Amino acid sequence: MTDLKKFFEPKSVAVVGASKKPDKLSTAIMRNIINSGYQGTIIPINPKETEIMGYTCYPSIAAIPGDLDLALMVVPAAKVLASVRECGEKGVKNVVVISAGFKEIGEEGQELERQLVEICNEFDINVMGPNCVGVMDTNTPINASFTAAAPMKGDVAFISQSGAILLAALDWSSTVGLGYSRVISIGNKANTNEIDYIEEVANDPGTKVIMCYVEDITDGPRFLKVAGEAAKKKPVIIYKAGVSQAGAQAASSHTGALAGSDLAYDTAFKQAGIIRAHSMTELFELAIAFTRCPIPAGDRVAIVTNSGGPGIIATDNVELKNLQMARFAESTIQDLRENLPKESNIHNPVDVLGDARTDRYQYALNKVLEDPNVDSVLLMMCPTAVTEPVDTSKAIVEAQKAHPEKPIFTAYMGGPILAEGAGISAANGLPTFTFPETCITCLDGMNRYRKFLGSLERKQAPAQLQVDQ
Amino acid sequence: MTDLKKFFEPKSVAVVGASKKPDKLSTAIMRNIINSGYQGTIIPINPKETEIMGYTCYPSIAAIPGDLDLALMVVPAAKVLASVRECGEKGVKNVVVISAGFKEIGEEGQELERQLVEICNEFDINVMGPNCVGVMDTNTPINASFTAAAPMKGDVAFISQSGAILLAALDWSSTVGLGYSRVISIGNKANTNEIDYIEEVANDPGTKVIMCYVEDITDGPRFLKVAGEAAKKKPVIIYKAGVSQAGAQAASSHTGALAGSDLAYDTAFKQAGIIRAHSMTELFELAIAFTRCPIPAGDRVAIVTNSGGPGIIATDNVELKNLQMARFAESTIQDLRENLPKESNIHNPVDVLGDARTDRYQYALNKVLEDPNVDSVLLMMCPTAVTEPVDTSKAIVEAQKAHPEKPIFTAYMGGPILAEGAGISAANGLPTFTFPETCITCLDGMNRYRKFLGSLERKQAPAQLQVDQ
Repeated sequence: MTDLKKFFEPKSVAVVGASKKPDKLSTAIMRNIINSGYQGTIIPINPKETEIMGYTCYPSIAAIPGDLDLALMVVPAAKVLASVRECGEKGVKNVVVISAGFKEIGEEGQELERQLVEICNEFDINVMGPNCVGVMDTNTPINASFTAAAPMKGDVAFISQSGAILLAALDWSSTVGLGYSRVISIGNKANTNEIDYIEEVANDPGTKVIMCYVEDITDGPRFLKVAGEAAKKKPVIIYKAGVSQAGAQAASSHTGALAGSDLAYDTAFKQAGIIRAHSMTELFELAIAFTRCPIPAGDRVAIVTNSGGPGIIATDNVELKNLQMARFAESTIQDLRENLPKESNIHNPVDVLGDARTDRYQYALNKVLEDPNVDSVLLMMCPTAVTEPVDTSKAIVEAQKAHPEKPIFTAYMGGPILAEGAGISAANGLPTFTFPETCITCLDGMNRYRKFLGSLERKQAPAQLQVDQ
Repeated sequence: MTDLKKFFEPKSVAVVGASKKPDKLSTAIMRNIINSGYQGTIIPINPKETEIMGYTCYPSIAAIPGDLDLALMVVPAAKVLASVRECGEKGVKNVVVISAGFKEIGEEGQELERQLVEICNEFDINVMGPNCVGVMDTNTPINASFTAAAPMKGDVAFISQSGAILLAALDWSSTVGLGYSRVISIGNKANTNEIDYIEEVANDPGTKVIMCYVEDITDGPRFLKVAGEAAKKKPVIIYKAGVSQAGAQAASSHTGALAGSDLAYDTAFKQAGIIRAHSMTELFELAIAFTRCPIPAGDRVAIVTNSGGPGIIATDNVELKNLQMARFAESTIQDLRENLPKESNIHNPVDVLGDARTDRYQYALNKVLEDPNVDSVLLMMCPTAVTEPVDTSKAIVEAQKAHPEKPIFTAYMGGPILAEGAGISAANGLPTFTFPETCITCLDGMNRYRKFLGSLERKQAPAQLQVDQ
């Protein structure tokens, strides 16, 4: 397989099937490439035009003067093959086939896709798709896709077998502030698949977290190897659809691939150190957590709350997951006892009480962050008559700066009253959610990853220890 | 126990501890009563004032001329007892003790609470609290509490052992459009508890759904009996906190009650036909579903989607819960085959494809709603280039009107692009969420309730059947 990087950092890109009609898919793609601020050469291809949207138009791939890094196919399926062959002959190694009408439509399309793969393999072409939304890199930048919403810049790479979920993710993400480094729509996976792109983004310095939506994984052993290597470098979070029998059947008719046994996936994911998300919400929430937080050094969670009930809910969730309630050092308990009102709970969960203003939150939060027995903090806020969400949020941000190694998760249990405070927390990079359950689920995911990294160290450690002794 | 109705529909209400100082808790309560549009008599009690906020002030409960339906205590714990005794002597049967400083603070407070209960029992007074937020009824209307956010009017009664979660729920609910009939903060549950209030709201015509947050239930047998009777009339949804060992300990220090074994609760809840929510989010989501939807007649779910991936996710969730994918009648399949594009999936999940505009969604949705093998529908939308969220949402609302007996759940998988469409769906009373998992969890909860109601019918049915034969 040739270099995949040109999918993401092309010096030139051609849109085969570009058009002057405003409602064409190819027009949306041209517009996205231009609007993304792409600095390379944009080349529309259409035998009937000489200029499109201000760019010189060529009749075919073959007619383009000079090199071409990336070609996008947005012509009917039947016309794709000839154009891809031209790419091969010209030495273009990266082709995105947006066009549908291949394996997903049945026998006729299957044959077309078989021929497409044949041509690509003959010329050593990497094909993304067919039947895909396109590709984006916010660092290059380029948005070579037909999405309606542009990706926010960030450090999560999203690889999705479903184009629709990718569209949904981009639109939805702006509401929760999740930004992307690269967005990859793998479609029918003709000759490149999630494994290839996991390998590629694992080496992308702009990517901190790898997030995948997959329906089937065809090459188990290679997946295990590649994803396992990637997971050593950065968190790999995967949502696997098609886990039920009916779901697997639906997946089968969707992209023509059979989804395997769920248990096998579960085992494989664990072995490879992959964080498995159990719902779409969890997939995105885990990505938010991993991109915003350091990995906590251990599983000991401290809870600071202004109310008992949420403290109990959070405690339940800590214990039901594989986390521990931190046991504070004697000095911490002493300090909290001396400086908080006597009705406060000074053990974990720390209840600073409903009448807590910023100063009391700040004192308690800093004390538990200083405690060596605490690895992470969940801070919760309920809107009481005296809660100061804005000032308290600023204090939380300061506390995080003073203890950058310990993640602080924030649960703002409310709506309009807490919204500005929650906004400050989120804008300053803290993982910010409404309910404590979400925070604990994320901490559990991070803890699973911490254990995986720890198991790697232990595998390497013994030999060194022997040398030292 | 005397009538609890006067907590919710009092003709007169006194605020013991009312003040002219703007930042007092009692001032917030006076303000809430006034702002809620309460039409009864408002009586501030303060020996140092003759008028507060324009209302005649009396020095004590005893000094009030005429009857009093409801007294709120907002004075220090030590002063509460004398005032409650005055209530007893005057014949006031309903007292809300907002004041903290009772059982929750330890031995000293325990003794005070014991004495409070003694006085209340002596005079046959129902006491709500102590250590509570207050009480609301949006139909009376009255908001006799110190919440910052006012409850939206609706038909969900919320009984909460945690005042903070009640505050959070009111603030948060406005963002998801959940309205309340009654909101009840039970606090330390001195001589009334969740059981009494479940019994009361079960008979409230303004309440369609009962929602509870509880940490402990002290009288198991009576709870089973009362909640079981309530569940026959309307859905009872409960979130039980303190399920883990550490969580139960935290609950114990919160209200001084010991939370029992989680398994025992689980069994009891099932027996009584109670819908158990497994997270705070689920508690509210289930309440939204039950208040907006009819109970589906069966467990057969049809899915209509404009994209394969979400269809697979939804199918997975249907199968992982105790629901079934509907098997369409032959005529439905035939109609869909003849009228949808050939690439569409015409079996369940119905995939109307990414290029579906309103007409195609409308056709498919109406066809599956007409199918006798379909009990409920999950409609999903991803934002593609041609999706028409506003017009399609209007069509969904019309389809719901034409088939009011079959719930339509909507998942708008996106953000800003779909927001207006989602708003139309929600404003017209359809349960509207972002991801399909949420919809299926709600349908599962409704199905559990349907089965409970069905089991009641079966218990009654045999005798009749014998007579008929």
